Amino acid sequence: MFKTSITIEWGDCDEAGIVFYPNYFYWLDCAFQRLLRARGLSQRTLRSRYGAVTPIVQAHCDFKAPARYDDVLDIDVEVATDGERRFRVDYALSSNGKAIGSGHEVRAWARVNDDGSLGSMPVDAEFLALLRAG
Amino acid sequence: MFKTSITIEWGDCDEAGIVFYPNYFYWLDCAFQRLLRARGLSQRTLRSRYGAVTPIVQAHCDFKAPARYDDVLDIDVEVATDGERRFRVDYALSSNGKAIGSGHEVRAWARVNDDGSLGSMPVDAEFLALLRAG
Amino acid sequence: MFKTSITIEWGDCDEAGIVFYPNYFYWLDCAFQRLLRARGLSQRTLRSRYGAVTPIVQAHCDFKAPARYDDVLDIDVEVATDGERRFRVDYALSSNGKAIGSGHEVRAWARVNDDGSLGSMPVDAEFLALLRAG
Amino acid sequence: MFKTSITIEWGDCDEAGIVFYPNYFYWLDCAFQRLLRARGLSQRTLRSRYGAVTPIVQAHCDFKAPARYDDVLDIDVEVATDGERRFRVDYALSSNGKAIGSGHEVRAWARVNDDGSLGSMPVDAEFLALLRAG
Repeated sequence: MFKTSITIEWGDCDEAGIVFYPNYFYWLDCAFQRLLRARGLSQRTLRSRYGAVTPIVQAHCDFKAPARYDDVLDIDVEVATDGERRFRVDYALSSNGKAIGSGHEVRAWARVNDDGSLGSMPVDAEFLALLRAG
Repeated sequence: MFKTSITIEWGDCDEAGIVFYPNYFYWLDCAFQRLLRARGLSQRTLRSRYGAVTPIVQAHCDFKAPARYDDVLDIDVEVATDGERRFRVDYALSSNGKAIGSGHEVRAWARVNDDGSLGSMPVDAEFLALLRAG
Repeated sequence: MFKTSITIEWGDCDEAGIVFYPNYFYWLDCAFQRLLRARGLSQRTLRSRYGAVTPIVQAHCDFKAPARYDDVLDIDVEVATDGERRFRVDYALSSNGKAIGSGHEVRAWARVNDDGSLGSMPVDAEFLALLRAG
Repeated sequence: MFKTSITIEWGDCDEAGIVFYPNYFYWLDCAFQRLLRARGLSQRTLRSRYGAVTPIVQAHCDFKAPARYDDVLDIDVEVATDGERRFRVDYALSSNGKAIGSGHEVRAWARVNDDGSLGSMPVDAEFLALLRAG
């Protein structure tokens, strides 16, 4: 499991003083990018090493309790298989030990064709193993 | 059904030239706020007229095709019941007649207690009827 | 002069119910990108036609009155020269005829070198004329 | 002087792989809010203790070098007087010891009138001393 944290800023909250919810998805994506980085990867190395991009197929979040300005949001990340051509990233969100929510992304594994279109392909086994390690 | 549109801006896209997906949730929320407005409501009138707020319980989006800078994103919105204390907002996203994705929000109907905590309550029937009209 | 408009959304405002100010700069950039588009240009055509990018050198905004959720923000855009290698974009912001603020961007005209670094060059005269037309 | 840091995320960058500039202003505001917090203050305590809000009057940034995904942005913050009814917050931005840019905000010191309008007043001396300490 990979763990990372984010501090909630004033500008992340709405008129009600709680996080404006689309920001949670920004943090899910941040956590995924940080996981890539922690494994020595990045969007650019995915493309150069595997010829692949990871387009989003589904994003989901269940919200259990509000988080507020200056709270530290802890994010636990786990990667799972989801068929041959997709993988799933599960997120658990908490703050000060209190559950804030949970969510997931489903991402495809795709090559970029010469005309810019995307073509799905089986997820690279080494890539998946790297993300699921540790 | 309520319909609204949004133009995708340069800053909404990532290094791959397609929409950075958390922005879709920003647009779902925008569409909900615009629906409220079209019915003569707002977050403030919900609070003054019904003593209610509409905290997000779940947000979900399935992505079918990428959208790009300067595309106009058309959003169709429909409201449904979801038990006694929640309601659901369904969104269909398209651009130039092509399906881009679909999503939904589940929102609770809650009062703000004196200590700032939220207490759920049955969704006001007039409110729901207003949102489902037209 | 080029004119464009933007509707202020719930998520653009902070706990005080007024626009969270960094969003104004997002709208300045949007207005610049829309001006490019209105002249048949885009970041991509700048690169393919002129071999140029337009990195930001300075951004500035003076705020005169707050704007709120659901206000329509009208933006007037004018382009001026600023030395040989830069140009300036001036913005006037208003809502319902009331001045909200004014701002500007200074942008360089640069080529992308083979190593990814940027090298400034004299602003293309045709480009400037296109932006200042109309 | 107050110092804070922010990690640049994938979603903060544009198609050119560098920070989309409006995000810098988001970080300036974050740094100001963190300074308040470090002094035991917040937007809410400003209102309860001093009856004051700090509306933005001017924001400015000069950009010297681009910053990219995963760079750590270090922000130095200093507060200065700017007449009797305003104060100025100066920011220096760097990454890995390299200057990225500098900027400032001018903020007013204002009370919220009963009708919601703002009225400027002399900046509280204790507040300014707190922000300039350390």
